[in-house]
Amino acid sequence: MNTDCPLPIATDEAIRLGHGSGGELTQQLLREFVFPHIDNPWLRQGHDSAVLAIGNSKIVFTTDSFVVTPLFFPGGDIGELAVYGTVNDLAMSGAKPLYLSCSLILEEGLNMETLKRVMDSMGRAAKSTGVQLVTGDTKVVERGKGDGLYINTAGIGVIEHPVQVSPQIIGEGDAILLSGDLGRHGIAIMATREGLEFEMPLASDCAPLHTAVQDLLRHGLEVHCLRDLTRGGLATALAELAESSGKDLLIQEAQIPVCESVEGACELLGLDPLYVANEGRFIAIVPPEQAELALAALQASPVSTGSTIIGRVGGRSARPTVILETALGCERILDRLAGEQLPRIC
Amino acid sequence: MNTDCPLPIATDEAIRLGHGSGGELTQQLLREFVFPHIDNPWLRQGHDSAVLAIGNSKIVFTTDSFVVTPLFFPGGDIGELAVYGTVNDLAMSGAKPLYLSCSLILEEGLNMETLKRVMDSMGRAAKSTGVQLVTGDTKVVERGKGDGLYINTAGIGVIEHPVQVSPQIIGEGDAILLSGDLGRHGIAIMATREGLEFEMPLASDCAPLHTAVQDLLRHGLEVHCLRDLTRGGLATALAELAESSGKDLLIQEAQIPVCESVEGACELLGLDPLYVANEGRFIAIVPPEQAELALAALQASPVSTGSTIIGRVGGRSARPTVILETALGCERILDRLAGEQLPRIC
Repeated sequence: MNTDCPLPIATDEAIRLGHGSGGELTQQLLREFVFPHIDNPWLRQGHDSAVLAIGNSKIVFTTDSFVVTPLFFPGGDIGELAVYGTVNDLAMSGAKPLYLSCSLILEEGLNMETLKRVMDSMGRAAKSTGVQLVTGDTKVVERGKGDGLYINTAGIGVIEHPVQVSPQIIGEGDAILLSGDLGRHGIAIMATREGLEFEMPLASDCAPLHTAVQDLLRHGLEVHCLRDLTRGGLATALAELAESSGKDLLIQEAQIPVCESVEGACELLGLDPLYVANEGRFIAIVPPEQAELALAALQASPVSTGSTIIGRVGGRSARPTVILETALGCERILDRLAGEQLPRIC
Repeated sequence: MNTDCPLPIATDEAIRLGHGSGGELTQQLLREFVFPHIDNPWLRQGHDSAVLAIGNSKIVFTTDSFVVTPLFFPGGDIGELAVYGTVNDLAMSGAKPLYLSCSLILEEGLNMETLKRVMDSMGRAAKSTGVQLVTGDTKVVERGKGDGLYINTAGIGVIEHPVQVSPQIIGEGDAILLSGDLGRHGIAIMATREGLEFEMPLASDCAPLHTAVQDLLRHGLEVHCLRDLTRGGLATALAELAESSGKDLLIQEAQIPVCESVEGACELLGLDPLYVANEGRFIAIVPPEQAELALAALQASPVSTGSTIIGRVGGRSARPTVILETALGCERILDRLAGEQLPRIC
């Protein structure tokens, strides 16, 4: 993507909220201010995690800081998000999540009851996903230098199968599967902030995705690529995969499920559900002849019962593009999220 | 230690700066609000890192968030600290540091020039220590919800030798070695904040310690325990080791080097150098017959030329205590840092 070359960021510019969007502005910040100083084959792959060979094992290493506001929202809280988010990043490399770290930045004045609720939630999330929180750190910053509580988790997982999961092996004709309806997490957060109410109560889709991935692999499927649809939503994830794979991606809007509440809220707030963050949805890209089997496997997994096949991989292209065939039969190009849509969504 | 049982923290209390001191208040917070929700053998060991068996390898996993203020100080900056701090936590388990993650929480309004300087510093620190920064994350919080820049690093190292490094194997009679003079980091930070000036310029001791540790191990020494002397300083580290080992530790004040500038500043500020944070100092505990060889090995390593033998391990005790024989020949008991001495030192 990146068809328009943005102006370079000047060193006397200031960080804006959009630099944390996970979209084009974040990428530009990394390109211009991080990668020139830190360069290695792992970072160059542009994944959410790094695959490392240690001894006879292939381990996966990833990290995320969580700054979501509010700390508690319908369907989840920052503690659960901090466990599931890192578990999901590991799962998207095809790894079995094993160990997490937990580092807290607490703001002076935070209520102990809040901390207790969050830690309880982290403990339960770790237990339910079978990961161990094995190491941690606690810092406190002065009142007004934080926002209650930030959590960083890093995670280690292990790859126990021979399947290579990577955008580089996405092939022409591959099927693109989506694991469920879009936008619940972002809209649940936004609705809480804005005091919106729905006829049908709306909860975040925040959930661990590792068992759904393990189900795919257990069926012996050649999973070419997996990607969770967090900041920047489905559109940004697809745009990144088009770029990494060097291929066009052809998507049918009619196959993308969006529930009524999300659709209504998006209209009201002027948001596009394709760009809204999810915390329990992912796409899987598999060879065309395995599409139906993969769909059945996903639909049998509780976290991805709403899976659909949303499109296919097109040919190699000098300007790899995500082309959305709209419900009305028109074509629309999906770029990465450009600015900031919903700050501090995770 | 913990001879006095503190009152439990009430759930309607608020987080105070002292809860981030790394001393007794931090321990109490963890005991009452974290460990009841997250419990496993690794956390129960109370180390700065976890040793994990993966495949045929023994790997070490650790994490730290860095919230030091100011971001730049004499002798270092937050970027360098974020690399060396995690490298040192890995080294203190006897591991060879290999891979780091880097997660940034940026405050809206942060100057790009500052980010560039910090990333440059991280890149150079990683290069100089031979670790790779392989995965990362970037979040942005609104103006007034951060303090410029917080960095989390998590790290993975590998244990390549058969020596078990753990407080549990500290033996009666073992020698306690200190790798250099105390208090430079804390005082350099404090002096910058308070605008103090010294006759002799004072810089933080911020430095990577892994080569000094590798030198000890290369000499075939049976290193029983290693501990870096960060938040809470030497006294807190010793108090923790007394508790973990169940043994008294007998320390001679006359053998503990403190430079004139640090001594002067401590008098002026009412601080005790034994409790001031260091970022490039550690203690090593070795069998008595290996003390001189260990001392020579440390003194030959550039980062620990100022090493001394500061004491020895006493007998098993129901109330394991750190006893300091002062320069005047009196005895003083060293407890963990109780409250907060220097907030946001790392």
